[in-house]
Amino acid sequence: MDTFECIRKRRDIRSYLKKDVPDDVIRKIIEAGRLAPSAMNLQPWQFIVIKNKETLKELGEFCMSGRFVVQAPFAVVVVTDPVNKWHEIDGARAVQNMALAAWNEGIGCCWIGAIEKVKEKLNIPRNLHVLTILPFGYPEEFTVKRKKVRKSPDEVFHWEKFGMKQSK
Amino acid sequence: MDTFECIRKRRDIRSYLKKDVPDDVIRKIIEAGRLAPSAMNLQPWQFIVIKNKETLKELGEFCMSGRFVVQAPFAVVVVTDPVNKWHEIDGARAVQNMALAAWNEGIGCCWIGAIEKVKEKLNIPRNLHVLTILPFGYPEEFTVKRKKVRKSPDEVFHWEKFGMKQSK
Repeated sequence: MDTFECIRKRRDIRSYLKKDVPDDVIRKIIEAGRLAPSAMNLQPWQFIVIKNKETLKELGEFCMSGRFVVQAPFAVVVVTDPVNKWHEIDGARAVQNMALAAWNEGIGCCWIGAIEKVKEKLNIPRNLHVLTILPFGYPEEFTVKRKKVRKSPDEVFHWEKFGMKQSK
Repeated sequence: MDTFECIRKRRDIRSYLKKDVPDDVIRKIIEAGRLAPSAMNLQPWQFIVIKNKETLKELGEFCMSGRFVVQAPFAVVVVTDPVNKWHEIDGARAVQNMALAAWNEGIGCCWIGAIEKVKEKLNIPRNLHVLTILPFGYPEEFTVKRKKVRKSPDEVFHWEKFGMKQSK
């Protein structure tokens, strides 16, 4: 899919069809994360792929705002290193790469807030930071067609200086 | 360009051809930023497009690590609102969308660290945060063909638990 079309059409997806994602597609999605840019190319990230149904169920119990992770055929836990002061910014760029690479394959995801409790469950070293849990799956049709709600161009675009709007 | 190809081939670009970028292409790039996802859809961002050569020159003087902004046909200053605790994460997702939308049009960019000094110059309210200045331009051929250096998959991918590697 053309990159701009992918960016334009991508939606956050919180409900998934009961359909497994092939391993080569999972691999392509995390590869997109690995290839992201980062400050000084330090790549302060780790990606844990979770397909085990029991683990996904347990993650769902931890995630107050993301119980839907239970339904997902797989999830990626993104772990960053706070020793690097740009770890969250760089992690977010890797997440956006993964979200777009997934949508390119017809797969949706949604950022779930970091849950410290998952560290013990997943053997994540205590000094690292859980940036997000991203459940991935094929979306239900109606969620793909939802309107994208964003501030208007005039609310967020400025020309040459802050506050300057284009007349045209 | 296919989204995965765009992610795979994109490089940070620090030197630009002396060739203007058409306004409709600039518009498409910032549109990609506007369409990014954000926590609770709060969209804590503003985008300032700068084409004025004098302003670009002044920005170059402010940016110790990014003097090459002087050469760029245009730059986007990304401003976020620290009242929102996810402002940097969300801003980074918008930047990644713009970087990919630009590459899709054959245009490169590079994240330059936030320079507080530009606030006064660009009339940016003091309570806001300058996340990055992104110079954009058509890359010189040799920079596009540079090898992408990243940690190996084994260094950053884990399966089911942190530290678990795939045997295959």
